[in-house]
Amino acid sequence: MQSTMNTNLEQFLKNNRSYITWDLAHLAHVELLSPKLDESIRFFTETLGMYLTETTGDSAYLRAYDDYEHHTLKLTAHKHSGIGHFAWRTRTPEALEARVKAIEAQGLGFGWQDHECDYGKAYRFRYPDGHECELYFDTNKFKPSAETQSALKNTASKFPARGMNVRRLDHMNLLAKDIVAFRDFQFGTLGGRMSETIEFEDGPKGVWVSVNSKSYDLAITEDHSGFSGRFHHVCYAVNSREEVLIAADIALENGVFIETGPHKHAVQQTFFLYLYEPGGNRIEIANPTARLILDPDYETIVWNKEERLKGQAWGLKTVESFHTRGTPTPEELSI
Amino acid sequence: MQSTMNTNLEQFLKNNRSYITWDLAHLAHVELLSPKLDESIRFFTETLGMYLTETTGDSAYLRAYDDYEHHTLKLTAHKHSGIGHFAWRTRTPEALEARVKAIEAQGLGFGWQDHECDYGKAYRFRYPDGHECELYFDTNKFKPSAETQSALKNTASKFPARGMNVRRLDHMNLLAKDIVAFRDFQFGTLGGRMSETIEFEDGPKGVWVSVNSKSYDLAITEDHSGFSGRFHHVCYAVNSREEVLIAADIALENGVFIETGPHKHAVQQTFFLYLYEPGGNRIEIANPTARLILDPDYETIVWNKEERLKGQAWGLKTVESFHTRGTPTPEELSI
Amino acid sequence: MQSTMNTNLEQFLKNNRSYITWDLAHLAHVELLSPKLDESIRFFTETLGMYLTETTGDSAYLRAYDDYEHHTLKLTAHKHSGIGHFAWRTRTPEALEARVKAIEAQGLGFGWQDHECDYGKAYRFRYPDGHECELYFDTNKFKPSAETQSALKNTASKFPARGMNVRRLDHMNLLAKDIVAFRDFQFGTLGGRMSETIEFEDGPKGVWVSVNSKSYDLAITEDHSGFSGRFHHVCYAVNSREEVLIAADIALENGVFIETGPHKHAVQQTFFLYLYEPGGNRIEIANPTARLILDPDYETIVWNKEERLKGQAWGLKTVESFHTRGTPTPEELSI
Amino acid sequence: MQSTMNTNLEQFLKNNRSYITWDLAHLAHVELLSPKLDESIRFFTETLGMYLTETTGDSAYLRAYDDYEHHTLKLTAHKHSGIGHFAWRTRTPEALEARVKAIEAQGLGFGWQDHECDYGKAYRFRYPDGHECELYFDTNKFKPSAETQSALKNTASKFPARGMNVRRLDHMNLLAKDIVAFRDFQFGTLGGRMSETIEFEDGPKGVWVSVNSKSYDLAITEDHSGFSGRFHHVCYAVNSREEVLIAADIALENGVFIETGPHKHAVQQTFFLYLYEPGGNRIEIANPTARLILDPDYETIVWNKEERLKGQAWGLKTVESFHTRGTPTPEELSI
Repeated sequence: MQSTMNTNLEQFLKNNRSYITWDLAHLAHVELLSPKLDESIRFFTETLGMYLTETTGDSAYLRAYDDYEHHTLKLTAHKHSGIGHFAWRTRTPEALEARVKAIEAQGLGFGWQDHECDYGKAYRFRYPDGHECELYFDTNKFKPSAETQSALKNTASKFPARGMNVRRLDHMNLLAKDIVAFRDFQFGTLGGRMSETIEFEDGPKGVWVSVNSKSYDLAITEDHSGFSGRFHHVCYAVNSREEVLIAADIALENGVFIETGPHKHAVQQTFFLYLYEPGGNRIEIANPTARLILDPDYETIVWNKEERLKGQAWGLKTVESFHTRGTPTPEELSI
Repeated sequence: MQSTMNTNLEQFLKNNRSYITWDLAHLAHVELLSPKLDESIRFFTETLGMYLTETTGDSAYLRAYDDYEHHTLKLTAHKHSGIGHFAWRTRTPEALEARVKAIEAQGLGFGWQDHECDYGKAYRFRYPDGHECELYFDTNKFKPSAETQSALKNTASKFPARGMNVRRLDHMNLLAKDIVAFRDFQFGTLGGRMSETIEFEDGPKGVWVSVNSKSYDLAITEDHSGFSGRFHHVCYAVNSREEVLIAADIALENGVFIETGPHKHAVQQTFFLYLYEPGGNRIEIANPTARLILDPDYETIVWNKEERLKGQAWGLKTVESFHTRGTPTPEELSI
Repeated sequence: MQSTMNTNLEQFLKNNRSYITWDLAHLAHVELLSPKLDESIRFFTETLGMYLTETTGDSAYLRAYDDYEHHTLKLTAHKHSGIGHFAWRTRTPEALEARVKAIEAQGLGFGWQDHECDYGKAYRFRYPDGHECELYFDTNKFKPSAETQSALKNTASKFPARGMNVRRLDHMNLLAKDIVAFRDFQFGTLGGRMSETIEFEDGPKGVWVSVNSKSYDLAITEDHSGFSGRFHHVCYAVNSREEVLIAADIALENGVFIETGPHKHAVQQTFFLYLYEPGGNRIEIANPTARLILDPDYETIVWNKEERLKGQAWGLKTVESFHTRGTPTPEELSI
Repeated sequence: MQSTMNTNLEQFLKNNRSYITWDLAHLAHVELLSPKLDESIRFFTETLGMYLTETTGDSAYLRAYDDYEHHTLKLTAHKHSGIGHFAWRTRTPEALEARVKAIEAQGLGFGWQDHECDYGKAYRFRYPDGHECELYFDTNKFKPSAETQSALKNTASKFPARGMNVRRLDHMNLLAKDIVAFRDFQFGTLGGRMSETIEFEDGPKGVWVSVNSKSYDLAITEDHSGFSGRFHHVCYAVNSREEVLIAADIALENGVFIETGPHKHAVQQTFFLYLYEPGGNRIEIANPTARLILDPDYETIVWNKEERLKGQAWGLKTVESFHTRGTPTPEELSI
C-alpha cells in the first residue's frame, strides 16, 4: 500500500536535516464531525471542562482554558463522525507565504479563503490521504470577559473547576493508507522534525511530527480499512498525571466509554487515556510530564516490530480497536 | 489560664493507656453558623463540590461524595460565624450508653433528644469550654438516587467533577481556654488516644484526638481571645496532594481568601490549605497521604516550644492569624 | 470445592454483626520464602527502598520507612517461593488471650512460642487452608539510629529517597481452596469485618478482611491449583498515585517484571501495580488515596459475576496469571 | 541605576517583534563555583539524583537523566560561590555565526575557543553585567553505557530512582544592576522573546527570556548589592508537582536548607522549591505542568508593583532573602 516512488527510511533520515523548516508554529485547531452535535458539545464543555466560544448554524467553537485563540475545536453536525479539517498556525506571515508556495508546487492547494471567526485569511489544501488542512498566521485571540478572566494574567482564561479541566490542545492523530507519502509531504513541503517513527521491514507504520519544543503536534498511523482521510484521535493536555487518573474516574462515573488507559505509551512517553465522545470520535486526555525536545539536531527515534510487540511502556497490550478503529467507521460510510 | 486541679503531661501520659476507650467511631458532623447562608451553601456545593442533601428552614445539610451519612456538614443562618454543635458517632449502641453514663457523671450532659434528619436518638452535652456536642449510634445513611449513584458500588456517591471534589469529612479543630480541662474530659470521659500534643513549659497548647486509624479526628488548640466555645476550622479530605494544589488554584480563581498553604504541617504531617468560607469560618482542604496509626499502643508525640518555632514541616512560618483567629470573631461578638 | 457444612452468604451477612470483634489491630508482618535470598534482599532494599533491620542465618528482616516495628517483612532462603508465616498484632494483651482461646476451641493452634527478634511471646496456629499465622501483642518497636532518624518525629524513620520509597506494609492476599472455611474461621474465630466479597452463584470467590479503618489488611481468593497454603501477594503503600506510576518506571528501568497495572481495582478501589520479586513472589505497590471505612456498621459490598466481568475500574481486563498464579508455583512443587 | 540611553518599556514592546530571532535553541549548561566541591558533587548526585559524567582537575561535569548532552552543570572548586559561565546552544551553525557577528558589533566578545569536553568550538563573550557566556552549535551528546541506558529509547538515560530524580535543566536566573541594558542586549543582540517582565514606575525589575516553547530559559532580576555578575539560581525540572513536594521532604530529611516553597509563582506559574547547595548557591526544583508558549506572536506579560505586592500565586509572601541574596555573597567577596 506504500507508494513506491518515495524515499526509504535510510534516505529519509539522511535528508532529514535539509527537510526541516520551522515555519509551522503549532497545531491550531481541529474540526470534528458529529452525528450528535448537542451531546458532543455537552461532552466537551461539561466532561472535558472546555469553554464554548461561539455557535453558528451547525457548528460550535470551543477552547480549553489556556488555549489562546478563539477556538481549538470546531464541532460540526454531520451524518457521520470524523474530521472536517484541521489547521496549523505559521510562525510568521512570511512563513505562511513560503509554505503556500511549496504546497502549490505539489498541486495540493485549494486556495486562499477568509478564515471563519474573524481570524483573517487562510490557505486551504489537502494532505496526500485527503485530509483537509489550512495554514494561517493572522488570528483572533481569545479576549476573556469578566466571567472567564483568570486571576493570573499569564493564563488565557479561568481554570474551569469543572470536569476534566483540560488545559490546551496537545496533538492530533490521523490515519493514512500511505505513510511514506504523508512523510514526504509533511517534512518536504510543510516542515517539522520527525521525532519518532515506527518502521517495520515493509515500511513505516507511524510517524510523529514535531514543529516546536513539544515532541509532537501530529501523528499519522497506518489505515488498513481501505478508506481515506480518516481520523484517529485528538488530545487535550491536563496539568498532571493525577488529573489523567481523575479523568478516568469522571469517564467511568458519566458513562463515557474508556477504550484503554490510563497507561504510558512507549512511543513518545505520553501518559494517556482514550475515550469516545458521543459523536463517535476518539479523544485522548494526556499529560506531557516534563519532556520536551530542545536538541536542535535531535535524531529520530526509530521503533522496530520487535520493540512494538512489547506493548506499551509498562507492558499493557494495545487493545485491538486502537489499531483498527478510525472515524468515520466503515459502518457509517456504508450507510 | 490552665486549670490547676488537673493532671500534668507526665501524669497524663502515664495514665494514658487506661484512658483509652474505643467507644467513639469517628467525627460525624459539624454545624457551622453563617451570616451569609446562601453564599456559604454555594461555596460548599460549587467550590468544594459537596452535595446538598436537604434544606429545612434556616439550615442546609451537606455531605462530601464519599461521606456515608445523610450529612457531615450542617449550615445554619446566624448573626455571626462559629460552630453550632458537632457530633461523634459511637462504635455500638452499648458504647453510646457507656459514654453517656460517663458524661452524666461529669455533670456536662443536657440529655437525650431526637436527632434531626431521621437519624434516631442522640445525646447532647457540652465540652468544658462550652462547645456543644452530641453522641449517637443510630443514623440515617445516604441512599443515592439514579443521579448521585456512583459507578463503583464501594463509593457512597458519584464523584462530582465539580470544584475541589472533596471526598470526606476529615477532622475539626476547636479553640479552648483550658487545654488541660479539654484533655482530661476528652480522654477521661469520651475516650480516644492523644496522638500528638504541643507542650510548652507552662502547659499544653494543643491536643490531637485520634479515635480510629486516622491520626486525628479532632484537634483543640489554645484560645487567647477570652471568649469561649470558639471554632478554628473543619477539614475535608481530597484524594491527593495534587488536588490540594488544584484547590488552591480554584480558590485563587474564585476570590476565596487563602490564609496559608498549601504546605505540610510538621504536626500530623497534614498537607494543608486554609480558606475562609463566605460566612467567615476557616475551612481546610487536606490530603492524608498514606499515614495511619495502626500501632495499638502508639506513644503520644510531644512537640516542645523550640520545635514549634521551626515553623511548618518545610520551614514556612505560621501566619499570625492562624494562632489568633477563631470564629465567632471578637468583632462579631462585640456588635 | 467449598465446604458444605458452612454458612451461605445470606446467613453469613445476617450473623455478620455478632461476628465482629476488634481484637486484631493490624497485619503485622509476612515471611516470604525465596530461592534467591540475596537478590530478594537487594530488590526490597534498593528497588522498593526498604530498610534492612537485621539478618540472622538464612533470614533477613526488613521494614518500610514508616513501619513502626522491627520488621514487617522477613525473607527466608528456601528451595521454593511462597509464604512462611504471617502475623497479626492484637489490640491488647487481653485481646490476644481471647483470640487464642477461640483458636484452641477450633483445634487449629500450635501453641505459644518466643517470638523471634525480641518481640516477646506469640501464639502460632494455622488457617484452614494451612497458612501458618501468629498472634502477638508484645513487640519490638523500631528505634532509629542517628542515620535513620527522621527529621519529623511523627515518622518512624527517615524517608529513604531510594527506589520506590514504600511507606508501610498495607495488606496481603492469600489463596485458599475453601473460601467459606476461611471466611468462617477469620470472622468467627479471629474477628474483623468483611468489607467486600466476590460471590458467584456457586459461592464466594474472594473475601476482604478489615480490622481497623483501612478497608482491608488481608484478602483471600480462590485457589484452583489443587495446592494448599499458597500466597498471592503482599502490598506496600506509597504516599500518592504519582509514586505508583514512578514505581512502574523504576520496575521498567530495572528489569523487574510488571504483571499488570498501574490501574485501579474496582474491588477496594486500590490503585495497583503488580511486580514479581526475584524469588518469584508477587508484590504490589499501591496508594490508598483518602478512602477509609469509618462507619462502624458498614455493610459488606458484594460483587457478582456480571460485575466482575467488567474488568478493573477503568475497564482493564484482568490478566490471566492474576487469577491463576500463586507461590509456590506448581513447577516448583513438582521438582 | 538604569542606563539612560536605552529604550523604555513602551518603546521596547513596540520594537519587540523585530527583535525576535530564534537563533538560540536552549540554555545549555551552567558552571557553578563552589568552595566545597566534594559536598556539592554529593548534593547534585545523591540528593538531586544527577549523573556524574566526568571529572577533570578542579571541575566535575553532571547531567540530569534526560539531558541529552555531556553535561548541563559544571561544578568548579573556587574560593567563593557564584557562576563561572553559562552557555546557549544555537539552532544551527549559521545561527551561531550570525549571533557572533552581532555580539562582536557590540564589542562584548572574547573570541572563539575550543569548547571543553570534546564539544567542538564555542564563542565566549560577556553580558552587560559581566556574566560570561558562550554560544556553540557543535556538541558532545551523551552516549549511555549499559548501566545508564534507559529501557525507553526516547529517554537520554535511565531514571535514577535516587534522591529527587531531576529530569532536565530547566532555566537559570541571574542578577544584574541594569535590567534595561540586559534586556537590550539579550533581545537586540542574541534574540528570544520577553515572555514576562516586572516593570515598576522607575523601570524594569526583572525580565524573562524565552527562546523556544518553554516560557523561559533565563531570567534576570535586579541586583541591589552593588556587585556585578552575580547568580540567583539554576532550576532543574521534575516530572510532577508531587515530586517537588517529595523533594521538599528529601531536603528536610537531609538537612538541606529550604529557603522557600513549595509554592506557585504568579510570574511564570512555576511550582517552585528553593534550596541552597553546600557551596552556597541557590537551586530550584520545579515542575512546568502543561504550560507552553505556542503563540508565535505572544505578547509580553507585564507585572506592575501593585500586582507583585500580592505575593506569590496563592498569597505566600516572598521571603526577603529571595530579593537580596545572590552568589557570591558580599561576605565572600569582602574576605
